Amino acid sequence: MSKRPSLTPLIESLPATVPFVGPEALERRRGGLPFRARLGANENGFGPSARVVEAMRNAAPDVWMYGDPENHELKTAIARHLGVAFENVAAGEGVDALLGLIVRQYMEPGTPVVVSLGGYPTFNFHVTGFGGRLVPVPYDGYRENLEGLLDAVRRENAPLVYLANPDNPMASWWDAGSISAFIEALPETTMLILDEAYCEFAPADSVPPIDVNRPNVLRLRTFSKAYGLAGMRCGYVFGHAAAIEPFDRIRNHFGITRLTQIAALAALEDQEYLRDTVARVAAGRERIGRIAAANGLTALPSATNFVAVDCGADGAFALRVLQELGKRDVFVRKPMAAGQDQYIRVSVGPDSALDLFAEALPEALKAAREG
Amino acid sequence: MSKRPSLTPLIESLPATVPFVGPEALERRRGGLPFRARLGANENGFGPSARVVEAMRNAAPDVWMYGDPENHELKTAIARHLGVAFENVAAGEGVDALLGLIVRQYMEPGTPVVVSLGGYPTFNFHVTGFGGRLVPVPYDGYRENLEGLLDAVRRENAPLVYLANPDNPMASWWDAGSISAFIEALPETTMLILDEAYCEFAPADSVPPIDVNRPNVLRLRTFSKAYGLAGMRCGYVFGHAAAIEPFDRIRNHFGITRLTQIAALAALEDQEYLRDTVARVAAGRERIGRIAAANGLTALPSATNFVAVDCGADGAFALRVLQELGKRDVFVRKPMAAGQDQYIRVSVGPDSALDLFAEALPEALKAAREG
Repeated sequence: MSKRPSLTPLIESLPATVPFVGPEALERRRGGLPFRARLGANENGFGPSARVVEAMRNAAPDVWMYGDPENHELKTAIARHLGVAFENVAAGEGVDALLGLIVRQYMEPGTPVVVSLGGYPTFNFHVTGFGGRLVPVPYDGYRENLEGLLDAVRRENAPLVYLANPDNPMASWWDAGSISAFIEALPETTMLILDEAYCEFAPADSVPPIDVNRPNVLRLRTFSKAYGLAGMRCGYVFGHAAAIEPFDRIRNHFGITRLTQIAALAALEDQEYLRDTVARVAAGRERIGRIAAANGLTALPSATNFVAVDCGADGAFALRVLQELGKRDVFVRKPMAAGQDQYIRVSVGPDSALDLFAEALPEALKAAREG
Repeated sequence: MSKRPSLTPLIESLPATVPFVGPEALERRRGGLPFRARLGANENGFGPSARVVEAMRNAAPDVWMYGDPENHELKTAIARHLGVAFENVAAGEGVDALLGLIVRQYMEPGTPVVVSLGGYPTFNFHVTGFGGRLVPVPYDGYRENLEGLLDAVRRENAPLVYLANPDNPMASWWDAGSISAFIEALPETTMLILDEAYCEFAPADSVPPIDVNRPNVLRLRTFSKAYGLAGMRCGYVFGHAAAIEPFDRIRNHFGITRLTQIAALAALEDQEYLRDTVARVAAGRERIGRIAAANGLTALPSATNFVAVDCGADGAFALRVLQELGKRDVFVRKPMAAGQDQYIRVSVGPDSALDLFAEALPEALKAAREG
């Protein structure tokens, strides 16, 4: 049999890929040896609230039932939490799935999409996967370049621009006024995808007021980070009702598991636990800064649950530090784009995990310098 | 602000929709009154194995970690279960998500896609959502029309044809020989999407032998039905390695939750529980047949966990029966296509649920006849 079904030219042109190599894959390459400190994926090692765990355990026997495809209770609670209407909220299997749906809504093959060079790979994965043309704008220092993004949008007449505030991978942020001015300056026909996955960790004055009257802003948040539910896959997007309704035209309606809906609802109801987590994360950031300083390294200020640590030399050196940390069972990641690649990115974890990082870092630096 | 970002013409043309209205939505319309018998969504009321529930409960505190984006352990276990290689298997957030990915791989706007009229709405949703042109082929009696599907494929030179065996919504099936002959007769350039979501319930001689050497067959199975995990969203597809690899180009890599991977793995390991479930479902089918007969109605033979019951009159009457069952707190669904619409579709459930159905049916029929 020589002939076979033909992939579309677009799909034919794409590589098989994984936007992030998971720690599990790295562990398999290590012969199955588990990491002792999992500090690379910006997961929240403080975990979900005990009430969330209890809710999940109670509901476990009920998973023979599909979850509500309209996510009604969860969306109602999110809308109340944000102070917006039900019609202003859509939910999905993580921010990742929602980003894919947004790309499908506004972009056709060849459409320019403005992003930051070195920004979130999964967004780029979706743009490329639907045939869009990435227009990358280099960071301005260690912050996304608002002026540069705006210039690129205007120059390309781009219908989509992606901005993360706070930012990943550098953990930097803009104040709310700067973001609002950016929104004001955007062409009315350009949709801003404002990824606020880390906003719960950020200074209050970095998060613009909620305003769902503007049809060209979609803001995304998640239960993966501050709420400690990365493994359950739930994100949400809010904005003008006219920009939210199209999600119902194309989403995977049953995509959010029944248990995820229950977990997210319980998480949202336990704001006291969230406040505790945010405080613990802030303390962990400080500690990573002290660990870096004790080793003669500089940590960038962070508005997230991770810290970018400048290894003080080039990207090849930082990569060696990362690898040496891995040999010492500490999993971290690092930015790869030029101008960022001298950093490693260390997620905040409980003290036990940061103890291992503190212990491994001097040895890793020594080995990297000798290597 | 008068201007706004433009949806693509395709997305602009689509309606907001839900392929299935969930029982939760119906309950909300009933003022929040829950159904007492949930027999409409082909869920498996016998639930997952106790070992699955235990595995989920044990892992609940760990969901701060992302699941393995490569689904390595789960895919390894599925491959072993099927007797194929790791490279022959892809997994996704339910068969629904995988169907969307297949459509993206082989179809462009305007591409003809052959389906059965009255077949699985979510597949049609994806075809329409990506701009394909549905070519519907009426059933032959209460079975999908293999000859008709083949004729349509040839006439349209269609790159995709969808076939469910056993079938939904009629629960009918073809023997393995007929399916194999259909595959033999297909053009080499047409991909068969063989949906086997219900195959664990079906007679052994209705499931073709596993053969991953043919590049134009993708077979889909799920943990939602026989394994009782509808709410956890996990399906898989197997076939020729060259037809499996493209899923890695476009899938939502983190889409299957960590807990789902753990649950599916535990479910696969408990084949004894699966056999018990299948036996209980077979007994439940028989009982639905007896309940139908006791009311002067005819139930079709079924190879699934649901039974199509002929209400003995037209579609409008069957709809009234469904509504009257709903008033008596019994949730069922019904096919809507011409030639099938005189049926209601009743999922097998535990005896307590079928007791309620048995009690409600005579009253519902009486009310429908008077209505």
